[in-house]
Amino acid sequence: MKSYRTELYFEVPTRRAFINITDQVESCLQDSGIREGLVLVNAMHITASVFINDDESGLHQDYEEWLEKLAPHAPVSQYKHNGYEDNADAHLKRQVMGREVVVAITEGRLDFGTWERIFYGEFDGRRKKRVLVKIIGD
Amino acid sequence: MKSYRTELYFEVPTRRAFINITDQVESCLQDSGIREGLVLVNAMHITASVFINDDESGLHQDYEEWLEKLAPHAPVSQYKHNGYEDNADAHLKRQVMGREVVVAITEGRLDFGTWERIFYGEFDGRRKKRVLVKIIGD
Amino acid sequence: MKSYRTELYFEVPTRRAFINITDQVESCLQDSGIREGLVLVNAMHITASVFINDDESGLHQDYEEWLEKLAPHAPVSQYKHNGYEDNADAHLKRQVMGREVVVAITEGRLDFGTWERIFYGEFDGRRKKRVLVKIIGD
Repeated sequence: MKSYRTELYFEVPTRRAFINITDQVESCLQDSGIREGLVLVNAMHITASVFINDDESGLHQDYEEWLEKLAPHAPVSQYKHNGYEDNADAHLKRQVMGREVVVAITEGRLDFGTWERIFYGEFDGRRKKRVLVKIIGD
Repeated sequence: MKSYRTELYFEVPTRRAFINITDQVESCLQDSGIREGLVLVNAMHITASVFINDDESGLHQDYEEWLEKLAPHAPVSQYKHNGYEDNADAHLKRQVMGREVVVAITEGRLDFGTWERIFYGEFDGRRKKRVLVKIIGD
Repeated sequence: MKSYRTELYFEVPTRRAFINITDQVESCLQDSGIREGLVLVNAMHITASVFINDDESGLHQDYEEWLEKLAPHAPVSQYKHNGYEDNADAHLKRQVMGREVVVAITEGRLDFGTWERIFYGEFDGRRKKRVLVKIIGD
């Protein structure tokens, strides 16, 4: 069994954003030389997500508005977590969108349906954050 | 390390449905001959889910009503994604229910608790769609 | 490829609770002797979650209140699942928080960001329940 590990770095200038990282993960896979196996891609922070969905800007605005409805940022005083911090909503939003994805690797490629793309979802940006890419297989 | 890959096909006649695919995944596992490892089961479409829960029809109706409350289908004009499409709600519902499950394989069987069953969750049906089953192990 | 399997047991005296199980999973990893691979940690019950987030009591109260808003326990008669049972809300809450986590193992350790901790999320306690830890790698 072979294994490969790397980190991707993000510093989003806004509080929230969705960034397509499919090409970066595909590039890690090429570096790894692994042809059959699984890749795990996860946020290393608890106010961010890695998820798979559509690369369509209208949908990303829909996600933004929907998540604000499900877990509003303001007023920050509504959350007990927000003593010294103001990011409780980010911890909630991340649970809806998920921490990680596991993707099959087949014949050296991400084994994806037509429209599947991997996104980094930032819910508390404006600082440096990391995503882990771990690949195991042969 | 051995690996195995196949696709399951679904063509649901309604917009939404939950289908128990546990036996199909167990059957893939028998085909694979893998005794110890992990199986990844994921929707290859971004308006569908694979998740694990109870095979109980009352609960499935509860999921249907609950998801409609969290992310209503109509009016379709409330979503920016719905220019040429009407399925934005399906992209949202799928995030709540999840894209994939990873299940342990032990002694050649799905290593499940008593009531765990795998479901395909369709949120934008009436066309042919696919689920990926990828197994790695020994 | 090596594999390792064990179960963790919980009997939570209340209906709902969040329990930090990071040290228990780390201890399983030491027992396994696996240095590079993946660990799957999943609830074996469909009214409980395993998830990764912050070990901060204010946040846990926020999760409790937020999940009650998204999927209220009472009135139990609002759910079709609640014929002989009263735990439909637990099946819904578990979907928001997730069934499982997959964590990378690197150099014999859980490959975590600074604040990542693994939690068992109980939504229908007051009875004995199980979590599966399955590790594969070298």
